[in-house]
Amino acid sequence: MRELGAAARRASRVLARASSAVRDEALLRSADLVEQASDRILAANHTDVAAAEAGGAGGTALDRLRLDESRVGAMAAGLRQVAALADPVGEVVGGWVRPNGLRITQVRVPLGVVGIVYENRPNVTCDAAGLCLKSGNAVLLRGSSSSLASNRAIVALLHEGLDKAGLPAGAVGLVEETSRESAVEFMRLDGLIDCLIPRGGPSLVSAVREHATVPYILDGAGNCHLYVDAAADLAMAGSIVANAKMQRPGVCNALETLLVHRAVAADFLPGLPGLLGGVELLGDAATRRLVPTASPADEEAYATEFLGPTLAVAVVDDIDAAIEHISRYGTGHSEAIITRDLNAANRFTTEVDAAAVVVNTSTRFVDGEQFGLGAEIGISTQKLHARGPMGLEALTCVKYVVQGDGQVRS
Amino acid sequence: MRELGAAARRASRVLARASSAVRDEALLRSADLVEQASDRILAANHTDVAAAEAGGAGGTALDRLRLDESRVGAMAAGLRQVAALADPVGEVVGGWVRPNGLRITQVRVPLGVVGIVYENRPNVTCDAAGLCLKSGNAVLLRGSSSSLASNRAIVALLHEGLDKAGLPAGAVGLVEETSRESAVEFMRLDGLIDCLIPRGGPSLVSAVREHATVPYILDGAGNCHLYVDAAADLAMAGSIVANAKMQRPGVCNALETLLVHRAVAADFLPGLPGLLGGVELLGDAATRRLVPTASPADEEAYATEFLGPTLAVAVVDDIDAAIEHISRYGTGHSEAIITRDLNAANRFTTEVDAAAVVVNTSTRFVDGEQFGLGAEIGISTQKLHARGPMGLEALTCVKYVVQGDGQVRS
Repeated sequence: MRELGAAARRASRVLARASSAVRDEALLRSADLVEQASDRILAANHTDVAAAEAGGAGGTALDRLRLDESRVGAMAAGLRQVAALADPVGEVVGGWVRPNGLRITQVRVPLGVVGIVYENRPNVTCDAAGLCLKSGNAVLLRGSSSSLASNRAIVALLHEGLDKAGLPAGAVGLVEETSRESAVEFMRLDGLIDCLIPRGGPSLVSAVREHATVPYILDGAGNCHLYVDAAADLAMAGSIVANAKMQRPGVCNALETLLVHRAVAADFLPGLPGLLGGVELLGDAATRRLVPTASPADEEAYATEFLGPTLAVAVVDDIDAAIEHISRYGTGHSEAIITRDLNAANRFTTEVDAAAVVVNTSTRFVDGEQFGLGAEIGISTQKLHARGPMGLEALTCVKYVVQGDGQVRS
Repeated sequence: MRELGAAARRASRVLARASSAVRDEALLRSADLVEQASDRILAANHTDVAAAEAGGAGGTALDRLRLDESRVGAMAAGLRQVAALADPVGEVVGGWVRPNGLRITQVRVPLGVVGIVYENRPNVTCDAAGLCLKSGNAVLLRGSSSSLASNRAIVALLHEGLDKAGLPAGAVGLVEETSRESAVEFMRLDGLIDCLIPRGGPSLVSAVREHATVPYILDGAGNCHLYVDAAADLAMAGSIVANAKMQRPGVCNALETLLVHRAVAADFLPGLPGLLGGVELLGDAATRRLVPTASPADEEAYATEFLGPTLAVAVVDDIDAAIEHISRYGTGHSEAIITRDLNAANRFTTEVDAAAVVVNTSTRFVDGEQFGLGAEIGISTQKLHARGPMGLEALTCVKYVVQGDGQVRS
């Protein structure tokens, strides 16, 4: 693993010097290869899927693992889409001259080596490698044992694409050790990994917090709230609640808890079951008086990211109570208010501490593509380095260049 | 400790809403109090110093701990200087409108609660609190047991200053448990500390890497290099080497290793002992042929941040060898080249991976105040969030504000 890391480190220096035309060439060649050799990827994936089925896997796990022509096509299209984006590397972020004549500039540069630890989605192999190469980084990929054959097939094609562009294979390293111990070893490759990004569930995130000694960015949970203010347009609130909860309930920017101002509860809540067909409602006492079909919500319900057709509901006395509830249970992802009151909107956006605060629209828009970032490596719920949807810029850092003509410090 | 953290969390919400005028008022009131009550601080410090002396402390440790009128005056002046800086909070970093009409802005906001773990310099208590309050953050301070009385006296005055400005005392929390276990507990205050900044030596930094589960920024070591290129102005090189090594040898941006191109070694190196009076030179074989007084340099010498009057020297064949040496031994802090060759300067600034790459001037300029940042909380040698000298901006993060008028995602 350390050898793979050292090769990635060497490759990162080549990538940092390579022009974006060369890096794009590697992406486009890889896209062609993935498309042309899709049968190789699918055969390898078939082996993985058969082994997983024999091992008793099923449902979502199997669905995540399985590739088909259309998913492989999406991988190739993703590489081309990323190649077409603007290169973040080389951007001059700022610059000034000091009174002693020193010229200082801040230039955007690649991070170096990005480590991705992920679960059994083989498409992450291709997507993450594409984003890292575009931003001038080498990548070390550490997927799960269940997808190893698929990952090997994909990485072999990426190596061919790199080679055709004259770039070293070390730029995309696949860690083949998949034990739990090896995951911990991966998180402690000090000096070899400049930034670790875990893509997976809460247990992976907590393993990173506990064991990682390399710098990391967490793509955390989204216990997202929507607050219907006293001054809300209730028709708008209804359509946004339905969208935020139901358009894709399994993702991190979906709505999990609805807070309704006491003054509009009697007008808004009785219609909720009709708006949210098939969604189980959990409510406090005030909610259940207005929505008799709702089950009681306990402390845990408000703390849960359901990622499915369940919604916790609470009636609050005022915007202060709504903000207090969010600060207690929120995970700092996306928090929304529906209101026509400018002061309420301003207070909410100022006082709620989250990656994205959303006024009169759906939390589902908090997403790299919807924001126009072009691509997304994840949504950060931490505050350092990157917060919210992360595009290519999150895979870069800034370097100071100081130019003088002999100045010394006195 | 958790109670103090919870109080800081509550205070952070008040600070995030407070205007910069109110926060500056707290800083200015505190500065006045520190000045007026300097005798209280000095009496407390006297207790700390006496206890440390009785415990056998001496030299640097005692010097760092000891306060006098002038150091207390500098603390007050520091608070006033920070109050006079521009407030980073509220800056609109970017903004755009999406095709569906969503208006997206990125706004600079405080991190929330900043944790500082530091050793026995009581002035850090005041300086760090000032920077955190200026940037709208609450701060949790965890100093050493040897400076506890001094820290209590300083924090009591800061609490008075906060109170006079109508801000809660929880905004500055002093952790009084100073055992090793409590340091680890401090680094694991998940949900209470948004960013941990250790101010101390390598053992503190490695403890943070090992134990911290809260996000952190490392202020790492500086094994800084200066490369004298074949095309260097050797008179300039001499004056810059002397400045970088000798102007203040004990700090992280001081020079530790000198690399000299083979073509100019015979012209440059024999004069080195004359330029660097009192500095012990350690060199490779080629250096020692030209500088007979130099002792042999081993692998370890090149890897050492001496922080004192010692300089490692090596003769290199070309700029590639210089860059290779730096990538092997450097700590990513500040790396300098002296050259008149544009191509060499461009290669060095592009290919050397460090927080600051410096052309034709001294590494000693890599510093928040010298860069014009107004104040410095440290110099980051990591790549995420902040790299290089960290001013107030490093104590902030960015929040997305998304405004719509009823848009839903299809």
